[in-house]
Amino acid sequence: MDANKLEKARKDIIRIYKNSKIIFTEREFKTMELTDFGLGDFYNIGLGVIIYVNTERVCAKELALKSYQICPQHIHPGIKGNSGKEETFRCRWGEVYLYVSGLETENIKAKIPKDYKDRFNVFNEIILKPGDQYTLKPNTWHWFQGGEKGAVLSEFSTHSYDAGDIFYDKKIERIAVDNF
Amino acid sequence: MDANKLEKARKDIIRIYKNSKIIFTEREFKTMELTDFGLGDFYNIGLGVIIYVNTERVCAKELALKSYQICPQHIHPGIKGNSGKEETFRCRWGEVYLYVSGLETENIKAKIPKDYKDRFNVFNEIILKPGDQYTLKPNTWHWFQGGEKGAVLSEFSTHSYDAGDIFYDKKIERIAVDNF
Repeated sequence: MDANKLEKARKDIIRIYKNSKIIFTEREFKTMELTDFGLGDFYNIGLGVIIYVNTERVCAKELALKSYQICPQHIHPGIKGNSGKEETFRCRWGEVYLYVSGLETENIKAKIPKDYKDRFNVFNEIILKPGDQYTLKPNTWHWFQGGEKGAVLSEFSTHSYDAGDIFYDKKIERIAVDNF
Repeated sequence: MDANKLEKARKDIIRIYKNSKIIFTEREFKTMELTDFGLGDFYNIGLGVIIYVNTERVCAKELALKSYQICPQHIHPGIKGNSGKEETFRCRWGEVYLYVSGLETENIKAKIPKDYKDRFNVFNEIILKPGDQYTLKPNTWHWFQGGEKGAVLSEFSTHSYDAGDIFYDKKIERIAVDNF
């Protein structure tokens, strides 16, 4: 993503965050992560991430998704003898379509762009509206998409080691993304 | 606290939560914890607690304090071979005066009711306004008070084992409180 596109993405994501009425600092907006997961298609596959805290034991983040923007399917493997990352998502604004392993939901609400149809294989749907939350068991494949207006989503978890995430789509390299 | 007083406390604390614009469920408001720490003086020493999640590894809560209401001085000792609870506080609404061990701040902003003057002995002041946060090291004595309008405060932490907390004020029995 070039500098102009990155700046536009930042402004768009800040607008999403502001809908939630959550108070962020200017520094948080300046230093937040904007990831396109290395695919160069931010508005389809991308995410805004503000990390409140990420120690060895605890992590809390605020995620932002534009309209129908997707955080692609991944899993958090165990690291250093710990079991995998455990995470709870709580919707703060908008609507989130979350998919995990399990019985496939018919007629899912998510809209997967046609170029990405084969990049997902778990379709057990959980719909999160403001105030709704869901706790993932460790080592669960999952992905999620913002609804029509987008979404703001809190994540409460154990230590977050994004570089260790495994993506179902082998074209994704999470580490590279942090440098775009 | 009798049923009428408890109901008034609940309404007052819900009003504080609503200032933050955070979306809670009706069930969360119904089942939230209102603690007076067993002292029977809720508006001076008390707290509203909504627990989002509390697994063996991760805990997230939303705390509410009325105007100048105090969460009394305590410490979280290690349990079951784990080091003590690690916690981060982030102010969402209002103002919080947080006190931890260390150099005593002169002219602290907190107002300690005169009956409680000898119930505190750490006075290193951290002022948290909306968007500000502070991470406590494990095994740190701390207490906090809502500012003039009260406060809503997020807590991100390792597992929360409130019954194991040690209070500086020996009159406090945290477990008893959960049953009032």
